[in-house]
Amino acid sequence: MSSSVSPLAPKNVPDMPVIAGIRLATAEAGIRYKNRTDVLLAVMDKGTAVAGVFTKSKCPSAPVEWCRAKLKGGGSSKKGLARALVVNSGNANAFTGKTGRASTALTAKIAAKAVGCSEGEIFLASTGVIGEPLDATKFDGVLGRLAEAAEPGDYLTAAKAIMTTDTFPKVATATVKLGKARVTINGMAKGAGMIAPDMATMLSFIFTDAPIAPAALQALLKAGVEDTFNAVTIDGDTSTSDTLLAFATGAAAEHGAPKISRASDPRLKAFVKAFNQVLANLSEQVARDGEGARKLVEITVEGAKTKASARKIAMSIANSPLVKTAIAGEDANWGRVVMAVGKAGEPADRDKLSISFNGIRVARSGARDPDYDEAQVSEAMKAPEIAIKVSLGLGKGRDRVLTCDLTKEYVAINGDYRS
Amino acid sequence: MSSSVSPLAPKNVPDMPVIAGIRLATAEAGIRYKNRTDVLLAVMDKGTAVAGVFTKSKCPSAPVEWCRAKLKGGGSSKKGLARALVVNSGNANAFTGKTGRASTALTAKIAAKAVGCSEGEIFLASTGVIGEPLDATKFDGVLGRLAEAAEPGDYLTAAKAIMTTDTFPKVATATVKLGKARVTINGMAKGAGMIAPDMATMLSFIFTDAPIAPAALQALLKAGVEDTFNAVTIDGDTSTSDTLLAFATGAAAEHGAPKISRASDPRLKAFVKAFNQVLANLSEQVARDGEGARKLVEITVEGAKTKASARKIAMSIANSPLVKTAIAGEDANWGRVVMAVGKAGEPADRDKLSISFNGIRVARSGARDPDYDEAQVSEAMKAPEIAIKVSLGLGKGRDRVLTCDLTKEYVAINGDYRS
Repeated sequence: MSSSVSPLAPKNVPDMPVIAGIRLATAEAGIRYKNRTDVLLAVMDKGTAVAGVFTKSKCPSAPVEWCRAKLKGGGSSKKGLARALVVNSGNANAFTGKTGRASTALTAKIAAKAVGCSEGEIFLASTGVIGEPLDATKFDGVLGRLAEAAEPGDYLTAAKAIMTTDTFPKVATATVKLGKARVTINGMAKGAGMIAPDMATMLSFIFTDAPIAPAALQALLKAGVEDTFNAVTIDGDTSTSDTLLAFATGAAAEHGAPKISRASDPRLKAFVKAFNQVLANLSEQVARDGEGARKLVEITVEGAKTKASARKIAMSIANSPLVKTAIAGEDANWGRVVMAVGKAGEPADRDKLSISFNGIRVARSGARDPDYDEAQVSEAMKAPEIAIKVSLGLGKGRDRVLTCDLTKEYVAINGDYRS
Repeated sequence: MSSSVSPLAPKNVPDMPVIAGIRLATAEAGIRYKNRTDVLLAVMDKGTAVAGVFTKSKCPSAPVEWCRAKLKGGGSSKKGLARALVVNSGNANAFTGKTGRASTALTAKIAAKAVGCSEGEIFLASTGVIGEPLDATKFDGVLGRLAEAAEPGDYLTAAKAIMTTDTFPKVATATVKLGKARVTINGMAKGAGMIAPDMATMLSFIFTDAPIAPAALQALLKAGVEDTFNAVTIDGDTSTSDTLLAFATGAAAEHGAPKISRASDPRLKAFVKAFNQVLANLSEQVARDGEGARKLVEITVEGAKTKASARKIAMSIANSPLVKTAIAGEDANWGRVVMAVGKAGEPADRDKLSISFNGIRVARSGARDPDYDEAQVSEAMKAPEIAIKVSLGLGKGRDRVLTCDLTKEYVAINGDYRS
């Protein structure tokens, strides 16, 4: 783990308000780390709705499989309802075969007993080393104590317990009106390098007191990730364990928040905006904490045939090692951007391309911009935040993704021995 | 450019025989480099067949567009026939707009005059910086002198003239029977880091005296690249200028080689094998000279649903920064291989996966192989050549790709300023 905080870390950490119906507690279970917390238990009041989106990996971790099954109403679960979330860091319980499945089942059993609910109402996430069996007996006792100790919470402390190679804890909050009541949305996430020395996974958890039914919450979450978490890439590598869960306790109904059953409910408008801002804030923090990152890079592609085409081109640029190393070298290397546009396989006309770095146009109409001043661009490239804009001149498709630069530190962090 | 030769360079450079009908010459035209050759002229006898395959980039360089047009019989070209090849290093003439097209036209005009043929029989390739206008007037005079000086060849000297960040020249040769005659196949290539500090492009040129008609040569080339050049990746970035051209003078017909008009001609069997070996040899050398490479990595995927599926999974592994940095760190990190299998999006069953590094199985049936010895694997990972084998257990699809590791040197080479 890195000892120094990313230079791109947010300057201010928000005060995280309490959310009625959610209690948190953390502990040192000694999963892998010493002298730090590595287990988070979140206990929810009865009737809390849950929604989730997960890695698209064809080889997902055991906890991802567990959560997917429970969301579908498998086993003893009450479909779409949750009573507890157990997260551990240090071991991802991924690629652990039958042992992994047994481990999730045992963890859920221990948690259900501790909280007093069915196993199907327990949601799980694990992050850390891949391929090592996770000894769930370590949770025995620990979860019982946590359930008793859980308090309406310290979200920052919770966010610290789920870190692996993250250099800072990631939290975000928003308060917004739903009907005439104020509701709160809290979120936490861990990144960071997408995958660190064997540490896999982006995890994020959102909590709200808004009374939103499971199906509506699921629809909100699915729509919300598209331009937030799904628009962030560190190295193009997809974890086996990526998990984003949202929990809605509904406690705000007591002071007048309307019960929402459909995501399209017009009363939800401000809430959706705030919800998406929390997702955007957290996902940007993940990019800011990319392994070895020294630059936050925003790539905007406009003038594409469609938004999907713009996304694909933006991702091709964001994942290009040559573009990323150039930015690390503070080089406005638009030739590599052209290369990445070209390899995306999407409609593009070389001779209509324009490219700018931090607002300075360096290429237009398929050639170097005759007016651009290399010294001015070089100066602009020293900034910690770099905005690359590509105009294709073909249509109205537009999209934006976030990434970071590729530095020697990334290679050093990921090239170390596991042991 | 790197001053030290890749530790993965072949120990022996083959003696390159003369090929009847091909004459070569090189010069210092001062395109970008000082005190080194940067122009190659290959002059072919009348009636030489030509075939080519090119980058799939949607933003190809001007020379790629030129060659594609001439192969199709555009302009003054005699379809499928070539009289000369002009290659320059130092400037890729890519993303240079109209100026770039004018530059290729002028180069071809100068070359046609020098050789005494039509412009349509001139083939061009450029490699080097992207986005800088290529001053083709520099070829004036130079190409005339080269056409006079051209001799039946020093292929190694020719291969040196087309290098950019390559740390060694790449040549290969094979001699094989076609009918009762012996025919020769010579090839050269340049890589190396796919793209270096602004130096783009993989270029390769194959020469043979076999009498093979253009359409047959094109079919051979297209089939041949599939498991050779198209199965090599350094960083997943695709140059705007990748060019592979094959020239068949037909001179061997004079001593009895049969004229071949169809690629499926059974008399071509041994030739096809030798031809593909030359392609395989050259493409492997490109991988061995990947920027900053310290390990040659062969990735074999078997038991996939189809060969195409195996290729996609193998490429996902080969392009994963996390797999590549792990190999640089001599870490048999099979968890990252699982991750890369999972993200490929192809059919895979986690619980049937087996993975080995240099013959040592580290994972089987979706979990760590209980029998594997970490010390033994760690020792094996110190080798300069690493073979990763993934067995999916789903079908009979099998494929193999070559790549190299991702080192701090790659980041250093590509993170430098352009100037």
